[in-house]
Amino acid sequence: MHKKVSALVTSRAQYGRIKLLLEILNNDPAFDLQIITAGSAMLHNYGNILDEFTRDGFERVDQLYISVEGGDNIAMAKTTGMAITECTTAFQQFDPDLILINGDRFEVLGAAIAAAYTNRIIAHMEGGDVSGTIDESVRHAVTKLSHIHFVSNEISRQRILKMGEDPSHTHVVGSVDIEFLNHAPDITDLSFVNEVGVGHEIDFSSPFTMVMQHPVTTGEDNETHIGSILNAVEELDIQTIWFWPNIDAGTGAMSQAIRRFRERNHDPRIRFIVNLLSQQFINLLRRTSCLVGNSSAGIKECSYLGIPVVNIGSRQQGRLRADNVLDTDYDIESIKQGIESQLNHGVYPLSSIYYRENTSQTMADILRRATPSVQKRFLD
Amino acid sequence: MHKKVSALVTSRAQYGRIKLLLEILNNDPAFDLQIITAGSAMLHNYGNILDEFTRDGFERVDQLYISVEGGDNIAMAKTTGMAITECTTAFQQFDPDLILINGDRFEVLGAAIAAAYTNRIIAHMEGGDVSGTIDESVRHAVTKLSHIHFVSNEISRQRILKMGEDPSHTHVVGSVDIEFLNHAPDITDLSFVNEVGVGHEIDFSSPFTMVMQHPVTTGEDNETHIGSILNAVEELDIQTIWFWPNIDAGTGAMSQAIRRFRERNHDPRIRFIVNLLSQQFINLLRRTSCLVGNSSAGIKECSYLGIPVVNIGSRQQGRLRADNVLDTDYDIESIKQGIESQLNHGVYPLSSIYYRENTSQTMADILRRATPSVQKRFLD
Amino acid sequence: MHKKVSALVTSRAQYGRIKLLLEILNNDPAFDLQIITAGSAMLHNYGNILDEFTRDGFERVDQLYISVEGGDNIAMAKTTGMAITECTTAFQQFDPDLILINGDRFEVLGAAIAAAYTNRIIAHMEGGDVSGTIDESVRHAVTKLSHIHFVSNEISRQRILKMGEDPSHTHVVGSVDIEFLNHAPDITDLSFVNEVGVGHEIDFSSPFTMVMQHPVTTGEDNETHIGSILNAVEELDIQTIWFWPNIDAGTGAMSQAIRRFRERNHDPRIRFIVNLLSQQFINLLRRTSCLVGNSSAGIKECSYLGIPVVNIGSRQQGRLRADNVLDTDYDIESIKQGIESQLNHGVYPLSSIYYRENTSQTMADILRRATPSVQKRFLD
Amino acid sequence: MHKKVSALVTSRAQYGRIKLLLEILNNDPAFDLQIITAGSAMLHNYGNILDEFTRDGFERVDQLYISVEGGDNIAMAKTTGMAITECTTAFQQFDPDLILINGDRFEVLGAAIAAAYTNRIIAHMEGGDVSGTIDESVRHAVTKLSHIHFVSNEISRQRILKMGEDPSHTHVVGSVDIEFLNHAPDITDLSFVNEVGVGHEIDFSSPFTMVMQHPVTTGEDNETHIGSILNAVEELDIQTIWFWPNIDAGTGAMSQAIRRFRERNHDPRIRFIVNLLSQQFINLLRRTSCLVGNSSAGIKECSYLGIPVVNIGSRQQGRLRADNVLDTDYDIESIKQGIESQLNHGVYPLSSIYYRENTSQTMADILRRATPSVQKRFLD
Repeated sequence: MHKKVSALVTSRAQYGRIKLLLEILNNDPAFDLQIITAGSAMLHNYGNILDEFTRDGFERVDQLYISVEGGDNIAMAKTTGMAITECTTAFQQFDPDLILINGDRFEVLGAAIAAAYTNRIIAHMEGGDVSGTIDESVRHAVTKLSHIHFVSNEISRQRILKMGEDPSHTHVVGSVDIEFLNHAPDITDLSFVNEVGVGHEIDFSSPFTMVMQHPVTTGEDNETHIGSILNAVEELDIQTIWFWPNIDAGTGAMSQAIRRFRERNHDPRIRFIVNLLSQQFINLLRRTSCLVGNSSAGIKECSYLGIPVVNIGSRQQGRLRADNVLDTDYDIESIKQGIESQLNHGVYPLSSIYYRENTSQTMADILRRATPSVQKRFLD
Repeated sequence: MHKKVSALVTSRAQYGRIKLLLEILNNDPAFDLQIITAGSAMLHNYGNILDEFTRDGFERVDQLYISVEGGDNIAMAKTTGMAITECTTAFQQFDPDLILINGDRFEVLGAAIAAAYTNRIIAHMEGGDVSGTIDESVRHAVTKLSHIHFVSNEISRQRILKMGEDPSHTHVVGSVDIEFLNHAPDITDLSFVNEVGVGHEIDFSSPFTMVMQHPVTTGEDNETHIGSILNAVEELDIQTIWFWPNIDAGTGAMSQAIRRFRERNHDPRIRFIVNLLSQQFINLLRRTSCLVGNSSAGIKECSYLGIPVVNIGSRQQGRLRADNVLDTDYDIESIKQGIESQLNHGVYPLSSIYYRENTSQTMADILRRATPSVQKRFLD
Repeated sequence: MHKKVSALVTSRAQYGRIKLLLEILNNDPAFDLQIITAGSAMLHNYGNILDEFTRDGFERVDQLYISVEGGDNIAMAKTTGMAITECTTAFQQFDPDLILINGDRFEVLGAAIAAAYTNRIIAHMEGGDVSGTIDESVRHAVTKLSHIHFVSNEISRQRILKMGEDPSHTHVVGSVDIEFLNHAPDITDLSFVNEVGVGHEIDFSSPFTMVMQHPVTTGEDNETHIGSILNAVEELDIQTIWFWPNIDAGTGAMSQAIRRFRERNHDPRIRFIVNLLSQQFINLLRRTSCLVGNSSAGIKECSYLGIPVVNIGSRQQGRLRADNVLDTDYDIESIKQGIESQLNHGVYPLSSIYYRENTSQTMADILRRATPSVQKRFLD
Repeated sequence: MHKKVSALVTSRAQYGRIKLLLEILNNDPAFDLQIITAGSAMLHNYGNILDEFTRDGFERVDQLYISVEGGDNIAMAKTTGMAITECTTAFQQFDPDLILINGDRFEVLGAAIAAAYTNRIIAHMEGGDVSGTIDESVRHAVTKLSHIHFVSNEISRQRILKMGEDPSHTHVVGSVDIEFLNHAPDITDLSFVNEVGVGHEIDFSSPFTMVMQHPVTTGEDNETHIGSILNAVEELDIQTIWFWPNIDAGTGAMSQAIRRFRERNHDPRIRFIVNLLSQQFINLLRRTSCLVGNSSAGIKECSYLGIPVVNIGSRQQGRLRADNVLDTDYDIESIKQGIESQLNHGVYPLSSIYYRENTSQTMADILRRATPSVQKRFLD
């Protein structure tokens, strides 16, 4: 049976990761594809993403305006309200049979509601994981609205089944993040880093660490926490590429903390970067001595690369991890000791906990054949 | 610790059921109460509900405009988007610590998102049940956003725990529907029925049945199904009080089926009624010979009253039931045989599956003491 | 030059009036037409309006969900907010050069903002009139956002020019209401009236009056005012067809006044009707002895038919009128004397104040050639 | 009579200009004041504006989330839709008699609709002017929704009267911009400029020019136009303080043009600045040799200061101007010649076209006494 599929793209990073799957769907006559783009994917940092979709051969792209400014929890909630309103209209126009969403960002729950309430089948990727911040609640709520589950590992599959989902529609396919990592081209000249961002010029003939610390939306003191990491990195005096926090609620206070740090510390060996292309980011990850912070890249991508990680705080709490991850709290000394210990250890053996072969192709094959009932049932 | 509580009231019927709990909270100095009213509660069928809140002693009431007209699945989705936007503003104003919601209506998920995303504790009543229609998905998604769970029976509690919720915050308190039933005053003069609605005049010295068939939002042929029930009841020629379907998606087609039936059948022994006060409805339920349709009242209230029920179709699928319920599909003959069989059987013994003592007082006591973390964790 | 045109249809009555223009545009290869339907046009009283558009040959129809329930001024404002949001999306999809709107209903201002802010040419019909209620403000605000003005009479044109609009884009074309009146088929059998609505059965061999009293949104006591008219008509004891008030803010209180009147007065010679097809309405208008109330039909259509009108209150204040209109305030005695005086007078001579030949064709011809600048300038 | 007043603050610059009026209202027991803050006023460039309101003694402040991200015309329209929705709720809470708005920014029309549709008196400042861009349409549409008009000059008053407004409620009070200019403290040390922004360090012992070029929303090629000005200034090689364009639709393309210019021209004598406090800006204006671009500050503030202005393009078209303004189109040579000519001319005599004494106090006195009818009438 021919299937109309709407896929949600909310950021360039996420687009990078599901692009292989989208291309398979786009080239398969069994599917008719609509891409719905919204949120930070629409920001113009690397030119208009619409041009990129055109270049990549995607014809039907709907651009949704859903992001409410404010950068705090209220803006996050209202953006999700807008996501429902606008996704519902986009679905009304295209009338898809199936919606493809992934992950646990707050607006994804809005898209899931728009789809579920208008009786469309939802395929969700990366459910069943556990973590901290509001993502933990979003991810499982989305699971309870979804019909087909693509998960990255068996433990996540077991959680989804305990939640009453249908085993015949819950599939371990591995993580698209790892698949993307495997497919990303090798970039040996990393000098692009010094052409963007501000601060210290990175010398790629010497070791460097990377820091990615994102906001925790659930009431934590994000400002103090990022301050501790800044101080720890400053005191260790290692050259560092620091990625600006993402735009989740709390980002404002974190940005101010970074700005104040930069005013006080005139020459730290840190380069601050807002954004890179996904393939650029992957190539830095392959060469860094240590990743510090609370990004899922530390848990997922780095497990497969064996890169040492210092994982700080609650954001990744409970997520399945390999040996490469060392957890610390927000204490400056703990962070410093963690980084030193990981630098001393060096690269870990590759782990396949998040890896399966042919992740995207497997999903496309399942989507082609799947016919779940739109009416869900809790299976005891 | 003093607690600010926002309680959501979306219909007069629902207000009736949680009023006792709201009064307990309102009279307890440990709580500061905001009532948020929205949806069909704002319709003026029995005068302005704001007057009623004033009369009942509730001082802080915020009236939210969230209902988008259309009566279909698209309107349902967009109404939920508005619910997030408007609840977020109401919470911004009052800044509650705790949100009190109940059930599984579609807009409740919007209120839950507004609360969860702005880091407020959510107490949810009546989770863990299973049923058909979109309510099934809504109910469990709300559970995965909520922190405190008040359930009506042990089986529902077990489902919530399987979904990873915290046992120390999941409480069997019985159903407020049954508590309300117990407290509802006795009304012996049922003539109010003949003063509202249209059609046959009910003779209360003879037996009568009641029909409540609501839309199933998940793609069913609601129009054909209600037609079958109309024909079955017409052929049995028993006097019947028929309640207009609620305003969920699909209500338009069902209303048209009823209107066409009324044009073709000039003198059926059916009285069609849009709306009654909750205590009026309870007293009819106490005296009816049989309740037909897909209302949860057949499963819950009638279990405690022992009233025979013919439960039709998928809307209550999987919900815990007592002996009084006979399930049928949408086939006219099955419906007819079901009704005749139940009329022959007569009243069943009372069942306590949904009953616990002091439901509302127990909830208030738990709310006073509860201090769950705003950051949820899936407990494996 | 080929032009893409989006036309807004917000009610069946309005559709009737602009249908001839829409058909001309639809059949002219110079235009590519999108119909945007919203508001009460989407209600299912006469079946789905989408079927009607299909039957009438319109292929591109976008159905917008904009109406927020509540029936008061707050709902009116929020509906207008939704109108902007949803029209903007519909325009984003179709990308029209030109927007066609008419009249002064509150949601029209929302559509005009969506068009003006996204740099589309706006053609507005029926500007320059004056009246009471919020329509007065809406109409002129829409004029100041519009580029092409189609007005029904020279006085209105002069007002628009005084407001700084461009004379070369301000055209007296007559009223589509009168053109529709001229084209409406003759229906001699009026018995359809007694098949809809409730109350007294109208005997069409005897004279009858019609009442249309709509809400005034700007703070008037609509409830008392409609009560006075009900009493006046009751005391005169003439058979009357009474049209339910439209859904503007205030409609709730007026509906309650009618219901209470009906409970107290068991057999008035009044038939209450919610809705008729436009051609049915026109044929009643042609045959009534007097139209009572505050509808623009009394001022416009009845001027051309010579039907006596008792115009009550402020809603039509200042609007150009012919000899057939007798103005009264809300006093019962004034209303009674007004009706009696008009019944005694009988039919007036036809007036052409709102009439020009070929209204719709003239507009289509102008739209084909017009090339106003999207940047407006106030012409002193 | 006691009056509840809601005042809209949409940016820090605008707050600076109406702060004196707000303080007068706040200290007058005849008024009860609500401040509604929204839009760019909520951005955290200089710390939280809520703290500033607290410091300035304003107690009731409602913070509205209305800005939809996107930076283009679609975002502008949808933001206005949100403005209606959210202002309506804020008005529902506070229930003001009177709304105070000023200027012609797009979201102001949304606030005016929320107020007009819920029957509140609107006092509008700075109506009757003419200009280019969408502001021209917004300003006059707001006038046609408003009841009290405070204008800066007699010519604007005459336009408002021609538009049918009531002369007894249309008052020439001068411009708050000029009043603010007069009250702004003298800052002699301008070194703050070199502590913010990027680029050339300004030497305040030598002459400097300022550039402010904002987007024109109505379909102009903003990117090319700002490029021409950049090239003209570069070729003249004078030290220049360049203000980043405001966030109106088109800002994205202009920002890219600036970034590309900076990449190509490594050492122009230009400092680029995003934002200054209003009093800082005023003090630069007092000392600059010439203001270049399309800001209203060139027309208004500079008329009173006698500062030479090169006004470029259509944004200020038609606005009343003094001798200090030299108009040019977007041609590089014209711009260069314009700047050179103005630098040669030097300071102009002060003009009082936008000045009246005691602007804010006069407005407060009028607001205290004014009792316009909420129902507007077009006065022919």
